[in-house]
Amino acid sequence: MSTPGTFIAGVTDADIEEGRRAYQQDREHVFHSWSAQAGLDPMTVLRTEGSYVWDGEGRRLLDFSSQMVNTNIGHQHPAVVRAIQDQAAKICTIAPSHVNAARSEAARLIAELTPGDLNHVFFTNGGADANEHAIRMARVHTGRHKVLSAYRSYHGGTDLAVNVTGDTRRFGNDHAGVGVARFLPAYPYRSYFDSTSEEEETTRALRHLEDVILLEGPESIAALILESVPGTPGIYVPPKGYMQGVRNLADKYGIVWIADEVMVGFGRTGEWFAVDHWDQRPDLMTFAKGVNSGYVPLGGVAISDEIYQTFAERPYPGGLTYSGHPLACAAAVATIQAMKDEGMVENARRLGTEVFGPGLAEIAEKHPSVGDVRGLGCFWAIELVKDRQTKEPLAPYGGSSAAMGELIGALKAGGMLPFANYNRIHVAPPLNMSTEEAREGLRIIDEALSVADAHAV
Amino acid sequence: MSTPGTFIAGVTDADIEEGRRAYQQDREHVFHSWSAQAGLDPMTVLRTEGSYVWDGEGRRLLDFSSQMVNTNIGHQHPAVVRAIQDQAAKICTIAPSHVNAARSEAARLIAELTPGDLNHVFFTNGGADANEHAIRMARVHTGRHKVLSAYRSYHGGTDLAVNVTGDTRRFGNDHAGVGVARFLPAYPYRSYFDSTSEEEETTRALRHLEDVILLEGPESIAALILESVPGTPGIYVPPKGYMQGVRNLADKYGIVWIADEVMVGFGRTGEWFAVDHWDQRPDLMTFAKGVNSGYVPLGGVAISDEIYQTFAERPYPGGLTYSGHPLACAAAVATIQAMKDEGMVENARRLGTEVFGPGLAEIAEKHPSVGDVRGLGCFWAIELVKDRQTKEPLAPYGGSSAAMGELIGALKAGGMLPFANYNRIHVAPPLNMSTEEAREGLRIIDEALSVADAHAV
Repeated sequence: MSTPGTFIAGVTDADIEEGRRAYQQDREHVFHSWSAQAGLDPMTVLRTEGSYVWDGEGRRLLDFSSQMVNTNIGHQHPAVVRAIQDQAAKICTIAPSHVNAARSEAARLIAELTPGDLNHVFFTNGGADANEHAIRMARVHTGRHKVLSAYRSYHGGTDLAVNVTGDTRRFGNDHAGVGVARFLPAYPYRSYFDSTSEEEETTRALRHLEDVILLEGPESIAALILESVPGTPGIYVPPKGYMQGVRNLADKYGIVWIADEVMVGFGRTGEWFAVDHWDQRPDLMTFAKGVNSGYVPLGGVAISDEIYQTFAERPYPGGLTYSGHPLACAAAVATIQAMKDEGMVENARRLGTEVFGPGLAEIAEKHPSVGDVRGLGCFWAIELVKDRQTKEPLAPYGGSSAAMGELIGALKAGGMLPFANYNRIHVAPPLNMSTEEAREGLRIIDEALSVADAHAV
Repeated sequence: MSTPGTFIAGVTDADIEEGRRAYQQDREHVFHSWSAQAGLDPMTVLRTEGSYVWDGEGRRLLDFSSQMVNTNIGHQHPAVVRAIQDQAAKICTIAPSHVNAARSEAARLIAELTPGDLNHVFFTNGGADANEHAIRMARVHTGRHKVLSAYRSYHGGTDLAVNVTGDTRRFGNDHAGVGVARFLPAYPYRSYFDSTSEEEETTRALRHLEDVILLEGPESIAALILESVPGTPGIYVPPKGYMQGVRNLADKYGIVWIADEVMVGFGRTGEWFAVDHWDQRPDLMTFAKGVNSGYVPLGGVAISDEIYQTFAERPYPGGLTYSGHPLACAAAVATIQAMKDEGMVENARRLGTEVFGPGLAEIAEKHPSVGDVRGLGCFWAIELVKDRQTKEPLAPYGGSSAAMGELIGALKAGGMLPFANYNRIHVAPPLNMSTEEAREGLRIIDEALSVADAHAV
């Protein structure tokens, strides 16, 4: 095992020089997501490989973020790189109306992996438009307009997706009238229902959801969209019985259940899809990120036979130029194959139960700043607090704090590229990470947390 | 010159067999854009190269569609294929928050090519989300909500983009209340203003646009979004003075002018951007397709210095996982370079003035079914009518007809992959097509039109 944070061969002086030029041009010409542009000082990435990235000085960092939680197979997986190169040599692009072998094979493989009768795939460019199209399908299928979504959720950055979103990112774009009604999520650590146990949280959260359905009017509700394990909002794994309850309510009121598996799909939680943990079958399931690890932009909607039938004779009123893009689909085929061949989903599960679960429990025990740790597979949240009794967060909802800034700095100084959100650090490494790399990451976190502890009682 | 429609070496029996399997899987698992799924019989594409595609039987067809009007550099341009392969070997993907050399260089090159002070680039996955984000920028910048768009226009398939759209594709998704007001476009051949000359069309269309602005309330209007040459609606080139008038009205009322150059940007009309024909500088310009010929999904918004300043200190409330995707950006860099090296924009202009302009005028003269031909560069419409006097279209707006079906069949039988819309055939070949290929295409059209003539008086 090599030491993270070291300068290593593979990054040359010329690379570093190129990185400096790229930085300069970035500041002049690249407009960044979700940011005020003036104050940015983005990190340059010169090289990526496996579980590591190299910054602008050639310093190696352990990637515990999988970027935007998308590089499930790690960086530059050789089989997938080769598949992209081969498809590029064959057919880069073709209109969605035609038949293309890579597109057909990707659809077949995805339909095979998805639960239930989600046998049809509409390809999009990413997660946001996947959710937009899923909502449209639900609206046309039901003839209803309203969408139920959870507070704190994130469903994408386009207008409808961000309006359906329940987290702070919608604040700047919220029309408050696009046909969205929101319910409170099941979130045992900070129960919105004063629950004192997981069982109670399930019962109360489901009763609340049914209350909202009844108060909004069941016959006006087309869809219920829900991240199977809410990701950016805090990786709160649904308590036992909750997902079955969601399925039951959707059935009871004729509402289309859209499982947003953009972040958790394709192995992140140690099953191919997070709904598999509870043996559930949504009516529509959206995906992106992990489907091809983001090597080429791709997203999509897996569609049940019943909803497909709605569009058998009636045209679906939606589409896009790059639907089923051959290069993106070839990357998906190779990614899924590599994940199977190398047992990556099993490895994610193993890392969860053998390394991250026990390791993070130990860390929680040791550090007063850790209020809660929770997760599944390669998907964990460390929730940081000033006080374990009051659960006062180390940074406010929607905000940052000096303490969190220091912690992030300490993690980077320790040799890690972390994923941080408000008062949480997420553990979201590649699914094919080795045990040694996983333990090394936990060691860096353990060490850095002393910085957070200084702000906690 | 080889004969189109022939079986040629390069497609093997094994390819044909693979194509048959792909067709089968497509029908089982691929959900297609804008379609009723049951009746589809999509064409299989086995191979693509330059100006040609090969269908499921190995038959070669001259691509006069550029697919969805995106493969401006033709199929499988070797320099761009190589650039994709090289970038795949280096860094396939990295989060948008970081600095990446391919992203920086693409942004620099685009900023250099775009008119005026459109010096900053926000990358998206395609044209729809480019328009969504441009509208968001305009809304935040102006503090206003309403968007003006043209009837008949197309701005993309996501919810906001399709609601802003003025063509029939919005009918299935129209909320009629998302803050969109529509105006009638300048369309000399079928003037909505009873104009009898181009000058009159300009005057009346601009007066109408100002009427709508005043009737909607200028201070409620954030943006005016307009395809610089409306594409799918019919390639009606704006009459002289119209675009200057749009600029003047935008300035007069403090409205952000969003030029939608998704289809016409990057050389399609014989200039890098269609607005260049009239020396205009929009406030925001959206692009996709031609930026990298769709070899990898990519779109974006070019942003003026003034609008950029709005987001210097204030966070932009939008983003996406694949913003500035390295593989897509590397393809853009190589595409722009190839277009420069090989003088493709100049070639598009030359084909327009020397081949398509005169050739289509001759065809119009000869065939009673041709009501109008119009266009620029490699972007032309042939508008088909039953009667030149009444201008009764050969298929209704939003619909098809037996006559148009027969014509499309005749074009394919002649060895062409055409782009058809309602009562029009569009000529939208690669910009680097040879004169011989262009003439061959016109010959196929000339021959096929006898089928349409049989339906005309």
